[in-house]
Amino acid sequence: MHLLAVGGSDAGISAALRARELDPSVEVSVVLADEYPNFSICGIPYLVSGEVVDWRHLAHRRREEFEALGIALLTSTTARSIDVAGHRVLATDAHGERVLPYDRLVVATGAVALRPPIDGLERLGARDGVHLVHTMDDALGVLATLEGRAPERAVVVGAGYIGLEMAEALTARGVAVSLLEALPGVLATLDGELGERVASELERHGVEVVTSTTATALEREGSRVVVRALRHGSDGPPAPVEVTAGLVLVVTGVAPDVALARDAGATLGARGAIRVDRRMATGLPDVYAAGDCVVTHHALLGETYLPLGTTAHKQGRVAGENALGGERSFAGSLGTQVVRVFDLVAARTGVRDEEARAAGFEPVTVASSADDHKAYYPGATPVHVRLTGDRPTGRLLGVQMVGAGTGAVHKRVDTAATALFAGLGVDQVSDLDLAYTPPLGSPWDVLQVAAQRWLAER
Amino acid sequence: MHLLAVGGSDAGISAALRARELDPSVEVSVVLADEYPNFSICGIPYLVSGEVVDWRHLAHRRREEFEALGIALLTSTTARSIDVAGHRVLATDAHGERVLPYDRLVVATGAVALRPPIDGLERLGARDGVHLVHTMDDALGVLATLEGRAPERAVVVGAGYIGLEMAEALTARGVAVSLLEALPGVLATLDGELGERVASELERHGVEVVTSTTATALEREGSRVVVRALRHGSDGPPAPVEVTAGLVLVVTGVAPDVALARDAGATLGARGAIRVDRRMATGLPDVYAAGDCVVTHHALLGETYLPLGTTAHKQGRVAGENALGGERSFAGSLGTQVVRVFDLVAARTGVRDEEARAAGFEPVTVASSADDHKAYYPGATPVHVRLTGDRPTGRLLGVQMVGAGTGAVHKRVDTAATALFAGLGVDQVSDLDLAYTPPLGSPWDVLQVAAQRWLAER
Repeated sequence: MHLLAVGGSDAGISAALRARELDPSVEVSVVLADEYPNFSICGIPYLVSGEVVDWRHLAHRRREEFEALGIALLTSTTARSIDVAGHRVLATDAHGERVLPYDRLVVATGAVALRPPIDGLERLGARDGVHLVHTMDDALGVLATLEGRAPERAVVVGAGYIGLEMAEALTARGVAVSLLEALPGVLATLDGELGERVASELERHGVEVVTSTTATALEREGSRVVVRALRHGSDGPPAPVEVTAGLVLVVTGVAPDVALARDAGATLGARGAIRVDRRMATGLPDVYAAGDCVVTHHALLGETYLPLGTTAHKQGRVAGENALGGERSFAGSLGTQVVRVFDLVAARTGVRDEEARAAGFEPVTVASSADDHKAYYPGATPVHVRLTGDRPTGRLLGVQMVGAGTGAVHKRVDTAATALFAGLGVDQVSDLDLAYTPPLGSPWDVLQVAAQRWLAER
Repeated sequence: MHLLAVGGSDAGISAALRARELDPSVEVSVVLADEYPNFSICGIPYLVSGEVVDWRHLAHRRREEFEALGIALLTSTTARSIDVAGHRVLATDAHGERVLPYDRLVVATGAVALRPPIDGLERLGARDGVHLVHTMDDALGVLATLEGRAPERAVVVGAGYIGLEMAEALTARGVAVSLLEALPGVLATLDGELGERVASELERHGVEVVTSTTATALEREGSRVVVRALRHGSDGPPAPVEVTAGLVLVVTGVAPDVALARDAGATLGARGAIRVDRRMATGLPDVYAAGDCVVTHHALLGETYLPLGTTAHKQGRVAGENALGGERSFAGSLGTQVVRVFDLVAARTGVRDEEARAAGFEPVTVASSADDHKAYYPGATPVHVRLTGDRPTGRLLGVQMVGAGTGAVHKRVDTAATALFAGLGVDQVSDLDLAYTPPLGSPWDVLQVAAQRWLAER
């Protein structure tokens, strides 16, 4: 039995590891297009900031570990097509064509960075100090620009997770940052009230936050790049904005990389991602798929597309198990996410009003805030919560949180995610037996205060 | 309608607050024996350490707040008996006897500190530098000893939560501490492997940890006290141990304070605590009870006695609601607890092997450890976990954790507590959609690593 995974990031590696764990007699190979197997793409901002001092440290595992595990890595090898009937993948490497036979295939081709319609983006690249930030090569390119040009200012286009993390990373390196976002607020994955707290934190650390502003053109000017944009006001025509910078990062999201599977006949679903069932089966015989290239089964929303590293790991694990004949199901995503932005942490799990309404709920969202621990003990800091529940049934639907890094927001959201996973009602959240000691908590946890506020106000 | 609560700590106050919240027309009074309504007893160690600079700060709410809420406080008033048929409580205050009529009564008399059989303990007291630590008066007594005698050394008898917190507090004040514990390890609420980590942390900060040692006698010697004890070896007779100290704290646990309810005819249950149903009804007409004086309904163990502030808040809230005709049930305790000991945090939720076996489960406990966040990001620190599950059913039964204070152990245990509350299986813990960002987590959370280890090894 030979399991072949195409893709050397979270999903492909997880599938390979799970297969070896379940059956050490299975032959397992992983094909990847670059030289960076099992690298932490999520860690790129911390490489750029200098907190991670060597790019090699971003590897979750070293090559020797894969050898020890009996997993063969075929690096710098690009899968070109799948011969489903013949159970083989046709690939190319430096030496030419390769034919890779398999018994079971896991497609884990991931996603590609979106290229928004910015004039000049197609012409300018890493050599001009203009970068997408999605791969290790991208990351090393950004480092080269930082070292080679020592830019005084950077423009980051896109204020999602990666944009915020890159804004912080560049600030940490002493680069002045202008953050351009087409939407009216940063981190649009949170409600505006919480997004504004994140924007304030960015500004407090010197980041110029420019929202409602769409980048339209890039133009090289000597060793720098002029970024032209349009700022949309509440009335009147959009106002031109222009920033000149030595470094430009375009981080406006990703799209699933589906060509390999699509060309082999796989069905596509939400946002053009490969459609898989909860067993991660594509419908093509013996072909599974997982990670950023596939649709996401969301516990509340059904089929959606929500590429996250945590989800890729879980899907990969399921695919690896089922490829060997297992019967695991992906339990469902809740879109749980967290980002640290300077001294603040923002997190969410579940759905917000609009998504909940679209899914047939009658959502009510109630804002509250409570200290992370008893106020009499030094260092207490408020955690701001927006809790969404279904009015008629009282079911918990989602939680958003923003608080200081010392407030354990990143693990508080896990309590909410677990309650959501279990389908608890908001009143049951108030009933949870959570941990308390004065320097680290309160007898009623922040989340329980939020639940009680919701119950009183819904 | 007049609701009377006897007891001004967590349970009594929670009942009063809930009643006022539900029906502002209800007359609510709280009778308490001392002058410290709604004080945080859990905060005493931080008052002693000096981190809380004024004892008044330990009040969860000030008296004016109760006035504003329309809750009458009768301080320095001791309830002596309940006339159940006459719907009145007979009490005494500085002026003599008082008769307090009620329509509904909530007994929240709390617990009293245990007085272990140590010769001399009955004769020596605060004036000799010998203290129990359970009430605000006790706390102020300890402060007076510290200020008046400036002891160089203290003996803390009992290495449970309070003992550990007091050992840290006294160390912070520059007092050398000898911690005496009759059991073979500190923090016996955790398995020995984890308790040893806590003991090492204490020793690393200069605390002399003396386990398997039972204090037998106290004797005044000038301005100091000689503590005599016996150390139990694995063989041979116990060895005498003697420590001379300017301050002695005896913190060996509590017993429910049940005299008032018992004398009125209430039934007693586990550990002699007042038996209540899940509605917090005592069985006596119109008499409810809550907090450290009542039995604890445990989600896995049934009726037990596990006095905790969090539980007292919840029980009080239920009692206050039901006293007004509500139909709330206490959802059940999981014994979730956390303590900070210097730079370490130790927590648990649910049951350990022995308790689980007694409750009819077939427990298996598996140890694991994983970093709190990605190792490539600076500051990663291991969290040590012992996860208990039921072998035949795979149900999660309990989780114990020890890790650095920076590792968010205090909120990680909440994820486990929520999974337990919902009755999840260990495999479902591995499926949870938990939050990840490299500086604050890993794609598989510590708890999920523990779950996967359990599934592989059970």
